[in-house]
Amino acid sequence: MSNETNKLEIFDNPYPDRDYEIRTDCPEFTSLCPVTGQPDYGTITIIYTPDNSCIELKSLKFYIQQYRNMGIFYEALTNKILDDLVQASQPRQMKVIASFTPRGGINSIVTVEYKK
Amino acid sequence: MSNETNKLEIFDNPYPDRDYEIRTDCPEFTSLCPVTGQPDYGTITIIYTPDNSCIELKSLKFYIQQYRNMGIFYEALTNKILDDLVQASQPRQMKVIASFTPRGGINSIVTVEYKK
Amino acid sequence: MSNETNKLEIFDNPYPDRDYEIRTDCPEFTSLCPVTGQPDYGTITIIYTPDNSCIELKSLKFYIQQYRNMGIFYEALTNKILDDLVQASQPRQMKVIASFTPRGGINSIVTVEYKK
Amino acid sequence: MSNETNKLEIFDNPYPDRDYEIRTDCPEFTSLCPVTGQPDYGTITIIYTPDNSCIELKSLKFYIQQYRNMGIFYEALTNKILDDLVQASQPRQMKVIASFTPRGGINSIVTVEYKK
Amino acid sequence: MSNETNKLEIFDNPYPDRDYEIRTDCPEFTSLCPVTGQPDYGTITIIYTPDNSCIELKSLKFYIQQYRNMGIFYEALTNKILDDLVQASQPRQMKVIASFTPRGGINSIVTVEYKK
Amino acid sequence: MSNETNKLEIFDNPYPDRDYEIRTDCPEFTSLCPVTGQPDYGTITIIYTPDNSCIELKSLKFYIQQYRNMGIFYEALTNKILDDLVQASQPRQMKVIASFTPRGGINSIVTVEYKK
Amino acid sequence: MSNETNKLEIFDNPYPDRDYEIRTDCPEFTSLCPVTGQPDYGTITIIYTPDNSCIELKSLKFYIQQYRNMGIFYEALTNKILDDLVQASQPRQMKVIASFTPRGGINSIVTVEYKK
Amino acid sequence: MSNETNKLEIFDNPYPDRDYEIRTDCPEFTSLCPVTGQPDYGTITIIYTPDNSCIELKSLKFYIQQYRNMGIFYEALTNKILDDLVQASQPRQMKVIASFTPRGGINSIVTVEYKK
Amino acid sequence: MSNETNKLEIFDNPYPDRDYEIRTDCPEFTSLCPVTGQPDYGTITIIYTPDNSCIELKSLKFYIQQYRNMGIFYEALTNKILDDLVQASQPRQMKVIASFTPRGGINSIVTVEYKK
Amino acid sequence: MSNETNKLEIFDNPYPDRDYEIRTDCPEFTSLCPVTGQPDYGTITIIYTPDNSCIELKSLKFYIQQYRNMGIFYEALTNKILDDLVQASQPRQMKVIASFTPRGGINSIVTVEYKK
Repeated sequence: MSNETNKLEIFDNPYPDRDYEIRTDCPEFTSLCPVTGQPDYGTITIIYTPDNSCIELKSLKFYIQQYRNMGIFYEALTNKILDDLVQASQPRQMKVIASFTPRGGINSIVTVEYKK
Repeated sequence: MSNETNKLEIFDNPYPDRDYEIRTDCPEFTSLCPVTGQPDYGTITIIYTPDNSCIELKSLKFYIQQYRNMGIFYEALTNKILDDLVQASQPRQMKVIASFTPRGGINSIVTVEYKK
Repeated sequence: MSNETNKLEIFDNPYPDRDYEIRTDCPEFTSLCPVTGQPDYGTITIIYTPDNSCIELKSLKFYIQQYRNMGIFYEALTNKILDDLVQASQPRQMKVIASFTPRGGINSIVTVEYKK
Repeated sequence: MSNETNKLEIFDNPYPDRDYEIRTDCPEFTSLCPVTGQPDYGTITIIYTPDNSCIELKSLKFYIQQYRNMGIFYEALTNKILDDLVQASQPRQMKVIASFTPRGGINSIVTVEYKK
Repeated sequence: MSNETNKLEIFDNPYPDRDYEIRTDCPEFTSLCPVTGQPDYGTITIIYTPDNSCIELKSLKFYIQQYRNMGIFYEALTNKILDDLVQASQPRQMKVIASFTPRGGINSIVTVEYKK
Repeated sequence: MSNETNKLEIFDNPYPDRDYEIRTDCPEFTSLCPVTGQPDYGTITIIYTPDNSCIELKSLKFYIQQYRNMGIFYEALTNKILDDLVQASQPRQMKVIASFTPRGGINSIVTVEYKK
Repeated sequence: MSNETNKLEIFDNPYPDRDYEIRTDCPEFTSLCPVTGQPDYGTITIIYTPDNSCIELKSLKFYIQQYRNMGIFYEALTNKILDDLVQASQPRQMKVIASFTPRGGINSIVTVEYKK
Repeated sequence: MSNETNKLEIFDNPYPDRDYEIRTDCPEFTSLCPVTGQPDYGTITIIYTPDNSCIELKSLKFYIQQYRNMGIFYEALTNKILDDLVQASQPRQMKVIASFTPRGGINSIVTVEYKK
Repeated sequence: MSNETNKLEIFDNPYPDRDYEIRTDCPEFTSLCPVTGQPDYGTITIIYTPDNSCIELKSLKFYIQQYRNMGIFYEALTNKILDDLVQASQPRQMKVIASFTPRGGINSIVTVEYKK
Repeated sequence: MSNETNKLEIFDNPYPDRDYEIRTDCPEFTSLCPVTGQPDYGTITIIYTPDNSCIELKSLKFYIQQYRNMGIFYEALTNKILDDLVQASQPRQMKVIASFTPRGGINSIVTVEYKK
């Protein structure tokens, strides 16, 4: 998975002089539990203030799909998504919220934030 | 599209001495994707504090309809609506929130704000 | 409509030494559009901190009904309701929120606030 | 609009020996009012039992988009969609439900049914 | 109120050879209680199978508005609306459902049906 | 409680030639548990086809209030309400549904029906 | 668990001459998985027409609690509850619906019915 | 009603060294209108930070039931409940929210707060 | 995919003398579009009357997961799931409902039924 | 119950340099009332900022299950869960919210917070 961030495409922020917020919800996230190999399901929400670049949505869809057959823990994947998106788009600030469906009667939400 | 903002009509704020908020939801917004030509759908929410002028709702409806067959990206159109409405009505402050229906399992909300 | 505020009745605040909040929702508001004569519908919400007087609810119901066949714009009526209620009850603070049903696919909410 | 039904594509029903139901919801329908030219919005729901052919969804999407700038009444368009889909796919039975957003405080649902 | 049914306008059913259903919801109904003079509020739902005529929606809106300042009981008005609409449009069948907001903690729904 | 049914008032059915349905919801019902004396709460729904008489709603409200301080079991009170309403209004058919809030983590709904 | 049905108490149906329905929802059901020993959770809904006897709700609560530490499969427990309640109360008819919370992303509802 | 507060029972706060919040919702509140004698219904919500004492819930239930046949205005009863609960339990802070069902199409919420 | 049905495990129906219904919802279904390779998402609902065998839920979970990386159309997969489950468990009757998330603003539900 | 906290397992926070939030909802909590022995039901929500350790979810499930047959008051159990989780995972901050189902028509929510 060394090259997934270069798959994230960006485009020039059309209004870089203004602070504004872009929120994107990806309710079709799935990955694998690294211990059992069983699939996990959830919603990834990304909220950011673009600086010079905005994230291109089609490439974001493909980036999210790379987790489909990857084994990774909730806490690690949420932080990794933030790191990858920050590296690719260099936003003024960004928050990633990952909300997972119940396992064993328990459901989890991990929230990670970045500020320039 | 050089002349759409002059289509936005305004009327005198009946209570200019008081700061108050007007929120307008336009759930029937549609435009075109500039890449594929496919239609996009969403809700435009406008929240503002009028100064000397209020936005006339019928002209706002016609203004919003101008995007029906225009190709424009989410980020650009949200900022452009804010700019056009600010120019027409010169509010004390204004926020525009554009929430789009899902494409490829992903939905987006863009929020832009202006303060005098 | 010169005498409607004197129809608003008040009673002594039973606990004037304490700042507390009274919220009243009137979901059966209707008035007329001053341009077309067509009926408008909405919900009027009143939130206030009483000082020496509380607003009597039956008189509030009759006051609200006075708009039934009156032609008046959204912005004007919300501000006027605030002014009338403030004049009648002299509250420490008051907010009036008027939320109207859609016209031409657009719905509006006007929020007006008073502080002593 | 003489050639839109030939744009509807079909594919072979993979299980023609069994009666089963396919329901498709298209919540992004829009057309124009033939009197005022103003846009109408609604959801088109198609429920059918395929015979030898199923309707291909991408071509259905393009078929539905043909109404975007067409002036047509609610009752006519719902019946026309049924006729076009029946002609293209020759189903055992089909129902089309068109539900429109409010105009003048009134909303409408038209339901049309076909049985072979 | 002798002439309100002649205000209901009809137009030719574009598909008279087919039995199909038209449902119209009017959530902005209001009339007066004939005893107290106080306003009543509710939703009028009309479901019918047109024969040769469909009910024109703008005239229906004006017809419904005629009750705004009329004193009439729930049971009478629901039956009267059915009678007026049947007389005007001569449908194959029609149902009128009138659902009223609570009075004294009690709310009511009256359902009346006609079959040719 | 010998005289409560004579408190139920009726008025002439304005459309006795037509079978139609009147549904009334009373969400503010309360009575007492005959064993513990503790209050019970629930919603009483009455659905009936009037014959010559309709039930007057204000008297129904007072009738329902008679249970406020009466000790009576769920099954008995639902059947008794049906009996009292049938005796007073002689409907073509009537259904009474009593839905009670949870006690000990259990909630109950009793449904009783009468046909002439 | 040989004696739990004798813990179910009944009382005389106050209106045995009439067919009517009693519905009871027990949203606080829990038992154990017989394979893993892990707790299961769900809602037990009982709908029945009493004959000579009604089920006393406090004893039903205790009956339901007997499953708290019992290992039993979904299908077996739903059928067993029906059998026990039928044996105790001899109803004219009875339905038991058991709806369980998700395990492994899958949730189940078992519905069992008895007719005299 | 001189002795109802002594009916409120308290128990020792098991964790007095920590500021924490207890919220209790009583959705089955009922009292009488002091003018008309008609019943009022609502939900009483109590949110407090205990100091040395917590409010015992069974005694709270009985305390709330004392209002069942008492004539008292909304504003007075909300303030009185706060005073009684503060006197009985001496909390660090407490808020009482009383939300009443609609009367004459109007519903009210009264919010009262205490800080030590 | 020749051997997936032998992965479906069954167990003896504990109450084979009684017709009863088992409903299982699998909201975490995912497969691939055979044309684009893009993932599809949906909920598979299975409703059946067992004969001699019930479907073991853990093996159902693994069976459903086999579609995760399989390219297959909506209509084919719904029919195939029905065929596989019928072959494995030989039920008295079975219905499979597959509801998919929107693609291109269109969502689909396929319903297939089997009767012995 | 001296050894339950050692059953809580932790793992190394994969991103200890960043403050982020983990929220876990356990909607299947049950314990016993210490006075009556009757079961209580609720949802335990845990929100924390991990320092060096994260709480392992399977061990959390088993920890929560230890309360299944333990008699303990709402206030005590919420504080005890916070204490046990803080001792096991040493978070930067943590909040525990315990929301219980109604008893006697009253439901409660206890919220406890810890800051390092």
